[in-house]
Amino acid sequence: MDEQTTKGHEVTCLKADLICVGDEILNGLIENTNAGFLSRRLWSQGIVVRETAVVADERDSIGDALERGLEKSEIVIITGGLGPTDDDLTREALSSVLDLPLVLDDCWLQEIKHFFSQRGIEMPDNNRKQAMLIKGSKLLPNPAGTAPGALLEHNGRLIIMLPGPPNELKAIYDQSVKPYLKEYNRGSVFKLKTLKCAGIGESMLEEKIKAIGEWDLPPLSFVARGLEVHLQLKGQGDPAEAAETIERAEEKLRGALGDYIYGSDDETLAGTVAELMQKNRATLALAESCSGGLLSSMITDIPGSSVFYLGGLVTYTEKAKAMLLGIDEKLLKKEGAVSEKVTRQMAEKARSSLGTTFGLAITGIAGPESDASGKPVGLVYIAAVNDNGSSCKELNLGGGRLTIKERASQVALNMLRKMLLSTPPDLQRS
Amino acid sequence: MDEQTTKGHEVTCLKADLICVGDEILNGLIENTNAGFLSRRLWSQGIVVRETAVVADERDSIGDALERGLEKSEIVIITGGLGPTDDDLTREALSSVLDLPLVLDDCWLQEIKHFFSQRGIEMPDNNRKQAMLIKGSKLLPNPAGTAPGALLEHNGRLIIMLPGPPNELKAIYDQSVKPYLKEYNRGSVFKLKTLKCAGIGESMLEEKIKAIGEWDLPPLSFVARGLEVHLQLKGQGDPAEAAETIERAEEKLRGALGDYIYGSDDETLAGTVAELMQKNRATLALAESCSGGLLSSMITDIPGSSVFYLGGLVTYTEKAKAMLLGIDEKLLKKEGAVSEKVTRQMAEKARSSLGTTFGLAITGIAGPESDASGKPVGLVYIAAVNDNGSSCKELNLGGGRLTIKERASQVALNMLRKMLLSTPPDLQRS
Repeated sequence: MDEQTTKGHEVTCLKADLICVGDEILNGLIENTNAGFLSRRLWSQGIVVRETAVVADERDSIGDALERGLEKSEIVIITGGLGPTDDDLTREALSSVLDLPLVLDDCWLQEIKHFFSQRGIEMPDNNRKQAMLIKGSKLLPNPAGTAPGALLEHNGRLIIMLPGPPNELKAIYDQSVKPYLKEYNRGSVFKLKTLKCAGIGESMLEEKIKAIGEWDLPPLSFVARGLEVHLQLKGQGDPAEAAETIERAEEKLRGALGDYIYGSDDETLAGTVAELMQKNRATLALAESCSGGLLSSMITDIPGSSVFYLGGLVTYTEKAKAMLLGIDEKLLKKEGAVSEKVTRQMAEKARSSLGTTFGLAITGIAGPESDASGKPVGLVYIAAVNDNGSSCKELNLGGGRLTIKERASQVALNMLRKMLLSTPPDLQRS
Repeated sequence: MDEQTTKGHEVTCLKADLICVGDEILNGLIENTNAGFLSRRLWSQGIVVRETAVVADERDSIGDALERGLEKSEIVIITGGLGPTDDDLTREALSSVLDLPLVLDDCWLQEIKHFFSQRGIEMPDNNRKQAMLIKGSKLLPNPAGTAPGALLEHNGRLIIMLPGPPNELKAIYDQSVKPYLKEYNRGSVFKLKTLKCAGIGESMLEEKIKAIGEWDLPPLSFVARGLEVHLQLKGQGDPAEAAETIERAEEKLRGALGDYIYGSDDETLAGTVAELMQKNRATLALAESCSGGLLSSMITDIPGSSVFYLGGLVTYTEKAKAMLLGIDEKLLKKEGAVSEKVTRQMAEKARSSLGTTFGLAITGIAGPESDASGKPVGLVYIAAVNDNGSSCKELNLGGGRLTIKERASQVALNMLRKMLLSTPPDLQRS
């Protein structure tokens, strides 16, 4: 395997098998986002995922996959099937494959009872099952639900059980599994770094990278994510060598791509904007029409965003534009709600209504049908305003309603980022 | 297998194994949306997916998964690894497992050459590989790229190869695979229906279903989705029998669960609320604090929502609550922003600012830290108001920031749904 050798000497990585249990994934009722999450987390810790399997809520199917995983990989992570109902069979299957009994964890039983009593309900009898653990395993507390995770070292293998609901799985992974694996995987060195770009397409990006000239470093992977492109850099060898490889690649890429790179790894465009806003002690007000609150929600996903994001208006109808923002009704009639002039005025009114440094506004036709104006679906205006003046962008976006909402919000965030990068800090303080 | 028997006589379904080939899925760079797509399509044609595997771009890994699939299922679908480069190994692995040679398909080679010449490029030599097929297989044309699909009946098994890019896979599936499977799977009938519940937990739901008494119908699957629980009903046999089984199960469940069931299959809670709003010619205004625009975004995901949703205010800070909504500053100081009284006033002010039938407001502490008041993270108030009066709910939600935003929005939608169901229509028109 290419990934495991570099510069002639072999580096051995720990391998992991993922087993996701659930009829609801096999029949397509829910998307298996857990596999992608775990894969990214494991890779970032230098662990290679050998195979991912999705199996039915059946004892035999779970057992077969477990035996296979234990044979081929050092680590087996099994998700789902830890709920309170009769079709949750992961514990039982694992107990039978390993020939180890299930034992009651009294402390966790009290946690479950407490969880229910806080909600004024008595614990249903079947939830007792969730406090049963394979003998010898370590309980991983669930901060968001009643199914705990568990971890067992057995015959040279590490087995990790996690509940299926993504929010619970993520919380347990980051709180308990990640630090454990960090210790467990001390010997292996395999580094990855993702550089995230906005405001540039995949082809243009590739051309800019080709223009760097000779590339004597591990090949890059490109992934388009909505309007962003993510570049994955790899480094292998001893720790210093791996770090140096990534550093050299990053330096070359930053030289070629400049501000198109907004961040790396777990950073998000909204998070980068939030950091810039706080660094510049700037504040923001929004006026959203076709994005319908999505931009506001993306910003408020960032912890602590209330420091700079004072508030916004979702003026989804002409009535709301006139009554909540005080947009000139004559202008609305003359230009239509989806127009440059109205969008600029929305950004200004939002800004002045809360006295913020920046005002940002989005209007557009998200579809599936046009409005009374007959303007095309996908036409979007985005305006940003500060003391320096205002700018407005016209876009013609493809894709359905949800894609248009998402891309318009991404572009708006990137416009704000560019304004923050180009405005001298003393003009940003209101 | 429980799922395959009903009313004492056995109905045999064809089973399929899915094998998705690709390092980029295993390392989490791209999400495996192909598996979900194929699962849904196959189920809708009465074919059960037994197992899904994601394997690396390695001949042995692909070969092992193929052998396993051919042993356990009647149909094996393998996706990816059909590109022109050296790490595309699906053809070679299959040829070696089946011990059948690869042969050149001259017609498709011409297609590939044509594809390139249309773009003014000569065909690169390595694309010739894409016209190689396992001997005896039927080519499935690719309307969107150079990698064709292929289909082979061999030793009582049906093997289907599809390229990895989702748009190409979907196009080939719907154009060639779907009609082929319709013929291939004539004997089997298998129907599914999902009933979606809100406002009730999984355990409580299961107890209500147990209270129905004897259940002489196929077992139900439960899926928790945030605060919703989805129930999957199955019917098998001849078409009339399958439909009747589902009808009987639905009748029993509706009797036991009443209005906890908000919809079925592709319906969403926001969509159901949108329908009720329109049916009652009601209108809505929002005031969001801790949900930060998410509820507004969920509502505006529904096409045509501007008919009833006039607009909203994201009053994310005390300043915004006072300046945009005109919340009494003394009240804010006395009770704190996260309080029943402020939340009720927010709902009322949002409603009066746009003259709508309903006003809905959310405040809370989404975390990770509390505000100056020191109230606990997860404390959320939701208020709904109409001509009939107002109601307010206090919640203590677990999970992180994003979970709290999402669950608060779900509860708010469900409160609105219940108000719509209980209010006589003539009181709902503003």
